[in-house]
Amino acid sequence: MLPDAPRIAFVAYDRMTVLDFIGIYDPLTRLKSMGFLPALTWDVCAMQPVARDDRGLSLNATRFNEPLGGYDLLVVPGGFGTRTLKDDPRFLAWLQSAAPAKLKVSVCTGALLLGAAGFLRGKRATTHPAEYDALRPYCAEVVARRIVDEGDVVTAGGVTSAIDVGLYLVERLAGPDVRRKIARRMDYPYAMPPDSMVTPGP
Amino acid sequence: MLPDAPRIAFVAYDRMTVLDFIGIYDPLTRLKSMGFLPALTWDVCAMQPVARDDRGLSLNATRFNEPLGGYDLLVVPGGFGTRTLKDDPRFLAWLQSAAPAKLKVSVCTGALLLGAAGFLRGKRATTHPAEYDALRPYCAEVVARRIVDEGDVVTAGGVTSAIDVGLYLVERLAGPDVRRKIARRMDYPYAMPPDSMVTPGP
Repeated sequence: MLPDAPRIAFVAYDRMTVLDFIGIYDPLTRLKSMGFLPALTWDVCAMQPVARDDRGLSLNATRFNEPLGGYDLLVVPGGFGTRTLKDDPRFLAWLQSAAPAKLKVSVCTGALLLGAAGFLRGKRATTHPAEYDALRPYCAEVVARRIVDEGDVVTAGGVTSAIDVGLYLVERLAGPDVRRKIARRMDYPYAMPPDSMVTPGP
Repeated sequence: MLPDAPRIAFVAYDRMTVLDFIGIYDPLTRLKSMGFLPALTWDVCAMQPVARDDRGLSLNATRFNEPLGGYDLLVVPGGFGTRTLKDDPRFLAWLQSAAPAKLKVSVCTGALLLGAAGFLRGKRATTHPAEYDALRPYCAEVVARRIVDEGDVVTAGGVTSAIDVGLYLVERLAGPDVRRKIARRMDYPYAMPPDSMVTPGP
């Protein structure tokens, strides 16, 4: 399991889908802002100081062009930028520097980046439903579910699944009661059908 | 109704909840990026060049410290920053410069800012369920629903209602078929119960 003071690396890059990022950033960072895991820390990690989406929005890295070795939890969003970054040796080497992280998570086509970095080898995984074929070469099996939890790697479906996987991780890190409280503060009335998830099993 | 080439002002400010912003930004900007309203334009409008949330994330305005008179649609997110901005004459004067916008929308406690600017006078409205009392002085009636549509003003509930109201506005601007296509691309399987919404009616 993760330590009580987990350090999160939220990865950002050009042409990402910002909702992939913010949808999981919001519930996870509430673990700290609402006082449940006060020692939680995180960075917005990128190769450049500014990450621009494909529509004109830009956000600022808090740490850039530094290796990702010091984190417990790696979070990788998706977006059109993945289509070139998955074949970019410099980006992949940077992502691979996160290998020591005990938990690696992707949203949407972020799975293509986890896969290209080698983190999905031998594992089941999911991604945006339109990109299952693109994911197949990188993993043992693509599973058509909203969340696939392989213990040390968790992959999620398209864009808005960011919120569901964020709340799922909140529960893994802090329990079901904290998840309920954070979901309520986020005014989130929805719950995934049980069959939309794969969890590690016997 | 709005023109075919609507101009959107997404308002950003310090200590906003970024998911309030991005949850509505994603579906609305897909009207352009997916080719349904190619002439749609928008700005990220703030009083300063950079808007920081309450947790360490910052994003960059595309237009700052300029009046908001040139837009058709005003979008105001919520966040802790609203608690001071609702009494900040300089910020309110800036927001009031958006008065000509034919449609004004808030997410979460963004309703307090629309209210403090005078845009909810005589109207029904909603906000985050924990802040109904704070909204009451600014509107005719607080309605405990996820979306309240008063025609020229639409207010939504807490944080994640941003996505629901974004898709609702997509339908108002481009019809139910476009809404379905955008929701599918966002991999959004949820639908609000019909009684969670108030629409203009006799």
